[in-house]
Amino acid sequence: MEKYDKNSATTYALGTTLSIELLKRRIDLAKRIYISPKQRRDDTYSLILSLAKEKNIPIIENNEKIFRALSEKDNCMVIAEFKKEEAPLDKERNHIVLVNPSNKGNLGTIFRSAAAFGYKDIAIITPAADYFDPKAIRSSMGAIFSLNVFRFPSFDEYLSLYKERHLYPFLLKAENTLNEVRKESPYSLIFGNEATGLPDVFYSLGTPTKIPQSSLVDSLNLDNAVSIALYAFSEIK
Amino acid sequence: MEKYDKNSATTYALGTTLSIELLKRRIDLAKRIYISPKQRRDDTYSLILSLAKEKNIPIIENNEKIFRALSEKDNCMVIAEFKKEEAPLDKERNHIVLVNPSNKGNLGTIFRSAAAFGYKDIAIITPAADYFDPKAIRSSMGAIFSLNVFRFPSFDEYLSLYKERHLYPFLLKAENTLNEVRKESPYSLIFGNEATGLPDVFYSLGTPTKIPQSSLVDSLNLDNAVSIALYAFSEIK
Repeated sequence: MEKYDKNSATTYALGTTLSIELLKRRIDLAKRIYISPKQRRDDTYSLILSLAKEKNIPIIENNEKIFRALSEKDNCMVIAEFKKEEAPLDKERNHIVLVNPSNKGNLGTIFRSAAAFGYKDIAIITPAADYFDPKAIRSSMGAIFSLNVFRFPSFDEYLSLYKERHLYPFLLKAENTLNEVRKESPYSLIFGNEATGLPDVFYSLGTPTKIPQSSLVDSLNLDNAVSIALYAFSEIK
Repeated sequence: MEKYDKNSATTYALGTTLSIELLKRRIDLAKRIYISPKQRRDDTYSLILSLAKEKNIPIIENNEKIFRALSEKDNCMVIAEFKKEEAPLDKERNHIVLVNPSNKGNLGTIFRSAAAFGYKDIAIITPAADYFDPKAIRSSMGAIFSLNVFRFPSFDEYLSLYKERHLYPFLLKAENTLNEVRKESPYSLIFGNEATGLPDVFYSLGTPTKIPQSSLVDSLNLDNAVSIALYAFSEIK
């Protein structure tokens, strides 16, 4: 209970802002709220109490240990414990597919960009970093509470459930460039692992696409590559 | 000498690949190369030796302590110590201006995106995270060795040296959107701090521009915002 465990059924939103985001957007997932004795009894405190009260979410105010166990930052005063829950993706909508992402921080910032550009559905192909880790939740800045994220044991499994869509695997040596490629919906934008990218088999799938770039670098950081592709494909203009 | 000091005249490239990048691109900066006794005497080892020998860069093979002091990763076998050197920016070229960036990792990934999209000149307005920190160097994946980076004590100081250019400050409530804004060279793309963005005074400077985004998030992660803007402005297509 006192330390995050990736096999546990719950995880944690660390910090006041993130906890309020959870209570506002996904209170159905909230299990309990820890408030540090150091938290001032101000408007924020009252807001958390009133949001939690509406749905009878228990408030625990005498557990200092959990703050030491979960948070490296001294200024974390509120922790919201919530249920891990995955929701199936919507067949009609555009998807982001992350194949074997290995960095928790990247996952969080990708969620943030996804929400910014109007995406709701994210497939993660395992093995992958645990997106329920409090570090990933925190780096999403709460964006995760507006998304459907679902894990699949293989890309084939994902594909068998979501046929009838345009596939855009992002590959460094693809023929099509992001600025010229024809964008057809519903689509899936597919990205590989930080270090290894997508396996070569993706070159013969759908419309392989590259982000034009100089030869001075091997590749972009994953969350930057994803963010650029989401921006270019997004209908939010 | 054994721990990174931001006031020291030298810094470190941690790891084999990064050290080779330094030797290939900026050997003029290299001061000495540390090789761990654990490093295999393979082709990589020979490559480092021959690159260093060309310019008489000393090789130190019996200092295990420096690996413990500088690297958290067990698999770091080579460390290149090099001179911190700043180069003035080129007046004719397009610039990236980072006002008070506070995150070392972000700086590194921004350098990586800058090199990818053909930018060479980066102004950093202090106070700012130390881009010579080995963590920033590492997260740049060597891109820093292809860039001119220069620090300025204020934005006004930067502007007084680099007049006659189009300014694009990136602001969340700007009138112009990135996809529609008219792009005129030479330009400076200007970005604020991770948490606070640019001060409001930038709304009355040049062509304030925003990245279109939904109301579900407050903003993008800084390196993602910068990467998207670089992609959209870049001439590499």
